[in-house]
Amino acid sequence: MGFGDGKVVDIHTHMYPPEYVKILESRTSIPLVRSFPGSPDPRLILLDTEVPILEEAEAAKARGETPATIPGRPLTKHYSSLNQKMHFMETHEIDISVVSLANPWLDFLSASEAGPIAESINADFSRMCEEKCGRLFFFAALPLTAPRDVILASIAHVSSLPYCRGVIFGTSGLGKGLDDPDLLPVFHALADAKLMIFLHPHYGLPNEVWGPRAKENYGHVLPLALGFPMETTIAVTRMYLAGVFDQVPKLNMLLAHSGGTLPFLAGRIESCILHDGHLHSAAGTKPKKTIWEVLSSQIYLDAVVYSDVGLKAAVQASGPEGHERLMFGTDHPFFPPLGSDEEGEWESVTWNGAAVRKAFGAEDGEDSEEGKKVRGVMGANAVRVLNLRRDGCR
Amino acid sequence: MGFGDGKVVDIHTHMYPPEYVKILESRTSIPLVRSFPGSPDPRLILLDTEVPILEEAEAAKARGETPATIPGRPLTKHYSSLNQKMHFMETHEIDISVVSLANPWLDFLSASEAGPIAESINADFSRMCEEKCGRLFFFAALPLTAPRDVILASIAHVSSLPYCRGVIFGTSGLGKGLDDPDLLPVFHALADAKLMIFLHPHYGLPNEVWGPRAKENYGHVLPLALGFPMETTIAVTRMYLAGVFDQVPKLNMLLAHSGGTLPFLAGRIESCILHDGHLHSAAGTKPKKTIWEVLSSQIYLDAVVYSDVGLKAAVQASGPEGHERLMFGTDHPFFPPLGSDEEGEWESVTWNGAAVRKAFGAEDGEDSEEGKKVRGVMGANAVRVLNLRRDGCR
Repeated sequence: MGFGDGKVVDIHTHMYPPEYVKILESRTSIPLVRSFPGSPDPRLILLDTEVPILEEAEAAKARGETPATIPGRPLTKHYSSLNQKMHFMETHEIDISVVSLANPWLDFLSASEAGPIAESINADFSRMCEEKCGRLFFFAALPLTAPRDVILASIAHVSSLPYCRGVIFGTSGLGKGLDDPDLLPVFHALADAKLMIFLHPHYGLPNEVWGPRAKENYGHVLPLALGFPMETTIAVTRMYLAGVFDQVPKLNMLLAHSGGTLPFLAGRIESCILHDGHLHSAAGTKPKKTIWEVLSSQIYLDAVVYSDVGLKAAVQASGPEGHERLMFGTDHPFFPPLGSDEEGEWESVTWNGAAVRKAFGAEDGEDSEEGKKVRGVMGANAVRVLNLRRDGCR
Repeated sequence: MGFGDGKVVDIHTHMYPPEYVKILESRTSIPLVRSFPGSPDPRLILLDTEVPILEEAEAAKARGETPATIPGRPLTKHYSSLNQKMHFMETHEIDISVVSLANPWLDFLSASEAGPIAESINADFSRMCEEKCGRLFFFAALPLTAPRDVILASIAHVSSLPYCRGVIFGTSGLGKGLDDPDLLPVFHALADAKLMIFLHPHYGLPNEVWGPRAKENYGHVLPLALGFPMETTIAVTRMYLAGVFDQVPKLNMLLAHSGGTLPFLAGRIESCILHDGHLHSAAGTKPKKTIWEVLSSQIYLDAVVYSDVGLKAAVQASGPEGHERLMFGTDHPFFPPLGSDEEGEWESVTWNGAAVRKAFGAEDGEDSEEGKKVRGVMGANAVRVLNLRRDGCR
């Protein structure tokens, strides 16, 4: 890719360290990893919508047959191999990656196992970052199913890890969503530790909304293309309505997929608040900051939106200096190319890079205000916001 | 408002004719109209999310108490009075309104009553349009719960009504969504009759996605600000994936709320299709047209998005001539002003007007390319697309 003298940084890029894959292989409900005749790679089954096909495939396998439809996605070495991550970065001229555990993180662990497994996974990421010093940083996983003191201890611990630049979060929080008042101490601790929350979807929307034809006809398109961004938007809007951004003014969040659909819906959110009798009654409370104020001060967006239309809206929604709040990402190793070698170029990467250039109307390395904005989104913003510098690498 | 020599047209404006209000008053499940002590106007209860508060209020009323929270929204004369609609239009300098029955239309009627009630409601709208000849047109209601021959006869009938310019549709279709193959004859009949479908949300998303705090704390904000646009986006994406736009190439749709969130998510939809193994397998079929092609040829968007950020994305998503595909609307009589007289100016109107001017960076009546685009969205597009001319008015 190569953006002049600017570094290219990928802030949305996932891994499952080998230990995590072993956990998935041992599980009997999603998320899990299973092998099936007819599929060279083991399959990773993550989503509720994939369960009916999983069950049919397991029944076929039990009968000694090849399943008509292979569930989930191939678990290639792209998910767990550090060498493969580095190869991917080199192929796409990505200088620095801020890696994170992929969904659903540690959400399914018991209260007692979450703490030790989080520590072990974060140690894995630390080791990888140390091995590729200066090229890799990471967002840590938190043991959110553990008791509060374990979560707070984990925050204190990861904030001391030299390559940790934040934490990755799903939308379930402690089980009741991100507007749960019991999460406020966690948000305060993260804000105090200056740890960015990378908010990422996993649970999508209830299956029924996709209708009776989805399972047979539409692959993973609806839950991934619509369910994921809608989930993120709902989660952050609930946080906003609960006053979390007012109560924890130093909380910083990076929203996956350019905020889901928040940039497009922010105007409607403001209007619905303005016109809601309950929020303006004695019994109601409305947020102090407008959603636009939150978008331009506490929220950062990745640039994983696959078109200049969405990207421009994301930049504009982020305020007058919005171009300084967007950060390029790839979503690797999800969305591998279907029609070409996975060792080569990935369209999911080139589409997002092209969207950045098109949104600002500038080419790589152009010596102009717009060229500078491109370099900002492609890497300079992430270097500045996440402090992606590491002295003394051997 | 006043946009130079251009007419201002409101294509998203609803009414419940008096007959429809009587039906709502007679009902025991939503949608319904009820009176409560403590509320000067009867209350209109429409949404699933409002049912728990409705039940509490009915219990309080049965005990002779004033309910702690009054459910729904006040059913003012804005909903059913033609004079009030004309007053609203004059207050906001709206020259022409294309009125439509408000949600949930006739979705709840039995198979036998739907046909006659549709005919009667459409006759009501015809009479109002005749009375205000040249200032009012309408989108007809269809008896979608009736047998297919009744639906097709209704389409033939409304296409002969001189003020009818299309039909308003919810997302349930015949009960299984808009990707139901049984709807194809309906879509073909509408396309052949050159009747625009105005697609409008009502059902939102399942309550569980709003979380445990929504009922007490967030008023109607989440289902209206997020549920409605997400419902529209899901419905039209399901139609798209089912190949409806390929199979019925002359089908034209106008999407409420600037397409829900479709303009923002279109890039992600394309990427998810490109990367979906199932859609590219022998068992799968992917749409022939890209979503961008559909957006620039078969889909029109209203301009009810309450911010220039969303509006610009909607225009850009609609193709190189996207400014010719957007049409101003108000959503009257929903979202009345809370802090000022309902007889005066409505912020929901002025916000959407301001968003149009800001999106194009042009003032009312400005003699420039951008000023022309403003006039297009504010009215000229609707006049041209919906043929809003009527000769021989008395």
